[in-house]
Amino acid sequence: MARPHIVIVGAGFGGLSAANALAGADADVTVVDRRNYHLFQPLLYQVATAGLSPAQIASPIRAILRRAANVHVLLGKVNGVDKERRTVALDDRTISYDYLVLATGARHSYFGHDEWESVAPGLKKIDDATAIRRRILTAFENAEGADSHEARRRFLTFVVIGGGPTGVEMAGAIAELARVALRHDFRNIDPREASVVLVEAGPRVLAAFPPVLSAAARRSLERLGVEVRVGTPVTRCDADGVTIGDDPLAAATIVWAAGVAASSAAAWLKAIKDRVGRVMVGPDFSLPGHPEIFCIGDTAHALDADGKPLPGLAPVAKQQGAYVARVLRARLADKPPPKPFRYRDFGTMATIGRRAAVADFGWIKLDGTLAWLLWGAVHVSFLIGFRNRLIVMLDWLWSYVTFQSGARLITGPGSH
Amino acid sequence: MARPHIVIVGAGFGGLSAANALAGADADVTVVDRRNYHLFQPLLYQVATAGLSPAQIASPIRAILRRAANVHVLLGKVNGVDKERRTVALDDRTISYDYLVLATGARHSYFGHDEWESVAPGLKKIDDATAIRRRILTAFENAEGADSHEARRRFLTFVVIGGGPTGVEMAGAIAELARVALRHDFRNIDPREASVVLVEAGPRVLAAFPPVLSAAARRSLERLGVEVRVGTPVTRCDADGVTIGDDPLAAATIVWAAGVAASSAAAWLKAIKDRVGRVMVGPDFSLPGHPEIFCIGDTAHALDADGKPLPGLAPVAKQQGAYVARVLRARLADKPPPKPFRYRDFGTMATIGRRAAVADFGWIKLDGTLAWLLWGAVHVSFLIGFRNRLIVMLDWLWSYVTFQSGARLITGPGSH
Repeated sequence: MARPHIVIVGAGFGGLSAANALAGADADVTVVDRRNYHLFQPLLYQVATAGLSPAQIASPIRAILRRAANVHVLLGKVNGVDKERRTVALDDRTISYDYLVLATGARHSYFGHDEWESVAPGLKKIDDATAIRRRILTAFENAEGADSHEARRRFLTFVVIGGGPTGVEMAGAIAELARVALRHDFRNIDPREASVVLVEAGPRVLAAFPPVLSAAARRSLERLGVEVRVGTPVTRCDADGVTIGDDPLAAATIVWAAGVAASSAAAWLKAIKDRVGRVMVGPDFSLPGHPEIFCIGDTAHALDADGKPLPGLAPVAKQQGAYVARVLRARLADKPPPKPFRYRDFGTMATIGRRAAVADFGWIKLDGTLAWLLWGAVHVSFLIGFRNRLIVMLDWLWSYVTFQSGARLITGPGSH
Repeated sequence: MARPHIVIVGAGFGGLSAANALAGADADVTVVDRRNYHLFQPLLYQVATAGLSPAQIASPIRAILRRAANVHVLLGKVNGVDKERRTVALDDRTISYDYLVLATGARHSYFGHDEWESVAPGLKKIDDATAIRRRILTAFENAEGADSHEARRRFLTFVVIGGGPTGVEMAGAIAELARVALRHDFRNIDPREASVVLVEAGPRVLAAFPPVLSAAARRSLERLGVEVRVGTPVTRCDADGVTIGDDPLAAATIVWAAGVAASSAAAWLKAIKDRVGRVMVGPDFSLPGHPEIFCIGDTAHALDADGKPLPGLAPVAKQQGAYVARVLRARLADKPPPKPFRYRDFGTMATIGRRAAVADFGWIKLDGTLAWLLWGAVHVSFLIGFRNRLIVMLDWLWSYVTFQSGARLITGPGSH
């Protein structure tokens, strides 16, 4: 009998964790991804704000899984799943599976305002990050050449929509770029006059953190000169700027860090989904009625052992991937399934700028320099590849000591 | 009386060298470039072959010229020059000059076959390099998924057209990528079976070097598995592959490293130009009849003190830029002009792969490991910025020790 074939779609935190945990299992594993690299998304905002280069936070999937002889990597875009025939349709072929793990992640949601996307790009892919970097750096260039005070103010106004970790980190990093790295670069403008506005519709930033850390993050942002506006949603978003509630604000650069929507997995499976499009799955992350199909990470709406929904975080996806691999290994060996999944929360963190961050470990809450050092250590240690760890550490050290940032390139279609 | 205004178009080796040498002069200097960074072109092939990241060989022009208080930097595209009114036309404005330095570089020439450009991209800009990197890495991915022997062979055939330093370095780097870095990454193909063909219409590669070094370079290339075909031009170039003389070759990836044509400067100036479009200039690099206009680097056809045409090399452009700055400083101070220009040749080098390079210093010719170490030392030391030097050195060291290359990302429009 042929060995069973496990297909994993998506090489993000969840898919890669499952693939790694299936190395050496008695099955053929195929990992399908649209891109040839695994991206360390928590540091993507540093690419968007010219602190790091794309290659420092991305590793080729083939290189990561090189030693797993039973794991194949396939570059391709999945367009659908046939649950009855047990096949996955790619652009140019169809592959069969015995077991299917969907770890396809999330994309942005503009809450019904898809027309906002072209003016307010989100931050999920490397190409998003280099596009946002281009917009931010070009705005300063345009301000330097602007011929009226109004035009200059508009170019020097940056709006970040969404007060979660990505929004907070983006706003802090843009403010720091303007006040520190670009400080002496211009002749007609003072980049320190840039106005960075962080808009959050809810009552506070970092809503997933305890209120005391939200307040600390807000103070740190304000110390960097970021204007924090909570409690009012954005009601308009176009090439001229935004309207916050009823209040118009002229801004040339808008970054979207607000809504998240699951990928198309629910549509492929014709499955029941939650409000943001995630597939409702059972306690072992399998699809009800289809024990051979699993959804993990941002693709799935799953409950923890205590009945609370699991949050959309990298550690959750990783632990789910490893768990599904254990479930599969048990089934392949005709052994009883593993103990029910329980998310082990090692804490969450967000950084705001030079020597400012917040960290929540449950039993202890930190802010300031100590949280910032911890944030750096944890993020470097989770990067894949010793080279990336070393080079990112050197880059950060360098930026810290010299007040310079390393990757201030305007590249891509807009650069002529 | 207002201070004279010197406009420098282009922040390549020539323009930047002129701007640096004019720091502190009694004049306002404006450097205009389409891009916000200076690019170290000699290492661009390493970005195209996934060895380095763009930010490691590019530095923001503003940061380089930060301390030169009399130098302004303007991001913009020049469309024309009005010699009578002494103005330069940009997309959105016109600027006046008292002195003009054109250092606009070169682009590719397809010898009348402009339709070849879309299948055989050249290597001048960062966006070219990431596009070529995408094509090369995607070819291996497509070979892994190919369903026939013919298709696989076509995807695994790489043709580099042009046997100058760029062509030799590209061919060597592609062969090394296949034989070393990607070696264990695939399951269906062996990347070492990739066929890399270097085509040169002339009788030998590296025609500007002495024949003994051309022969050494050819041996090194063949040791890496590159097929070197000299003496026959490419007569067809399309999506299926190339024809070399009468000999068709199916190839999915073609890189153009053959012809160079000057930028549009001669057209802007309505000046006399040579066969490849370079402006004919006098011994001080000024335009005949217009002592206030200078052309340097690949923009100019100039003669050395011994009457020989100056080659299109980075050191020539740098020395010309510094010389024009001396001419201008003398004029501003009403002093006699400097001594006639004489190019100081410190030698030329090209690298082929791990521990293989050739170097010609006139009095001594080197090849092999020593030339390779020298090549590395010289190229690192000429990079702008200590951070870039350190990180490129670490990256090279890392690749040398681990046989891995660092920036194997498929990014950009073709990556879905």
